[in-house]
Amino acid sequence: MPFVDINNIPAKETFPGFKGRFFHSESMTIAHWNITAGSKAPVHTHIHEQTVSVISGQLELTINGEAKVLGPGQGAVLPSMVPHGAKAVTDCYIIDTFSPVREDYKNL
Amino acid sequence: MPFVDINNIPAKETFPGFKGRFFHSESMTIAHWNITAGSKAPVHTHIHEQTVSVISGQLELTINGEAKVLGPGQGAVLPSMVPHGAKAVTDCYIIDTFSPVREDYKNL
Repeated sequence: MPFVDINNIPAKETFPGFKGRFFHSESMTIAHWNITAGSKAPVHTHIHEQTVSVISGQLELTINGEAKVLGPGQGAVLPSMVPHGAKAVTDCYIIDTFSPVREDYKNL
Repeated sequence: MPFVDINNIPAKETFPGFKGRFFHSESMTIAHWNITAGSKAPVHTHIHEQTVSVISGQLELTINGEAKVLGPGQGAVLPSMVPHGAKAVTDCYIIDTFSPVREDYKNL
């Protein structure tokens, strides 16, 4: 079953307004986020490396205290344990990746 | 410089009609592909795990001999060394991820 119907994965709300659909390979977790305008993820850290790709909408991303509003075709690379937070300026569709796998996302 | 202006990354054509913009974390490569309708990637393998997410358009993906046409919100997880190929049914925008890093994509 290598194919994944991402739209049919039940969405999990990790922060209020951050609804994620997650799927996993052996060493990566892929997160498709639909984020409601105005929603905030407080500054946090995790051991997982992360990348961010904005598909639609505007996301204010703060990394190590530096804030930037990202639009479609913009993104970021976050090393392990770097402090980061986010705020949806508009409704957003974002694809994040993590490595290693977000085991914590498997049990939400 | 954690932020990435993906739109400004020079596109590399790995197969005719497959134009990719690549960025990398320590253990992952993220590929934003714009693929022209009718373009084909022949069946191939690599040691890297891979995930596929279709953002727009229709991509026929063949994994281990099983073909499926994927649209927006569909994707796939490919273990290391699994034979796979692709054909763009329409113009497509696809985001793939790889782990470990595609060092071969750094020198295209």
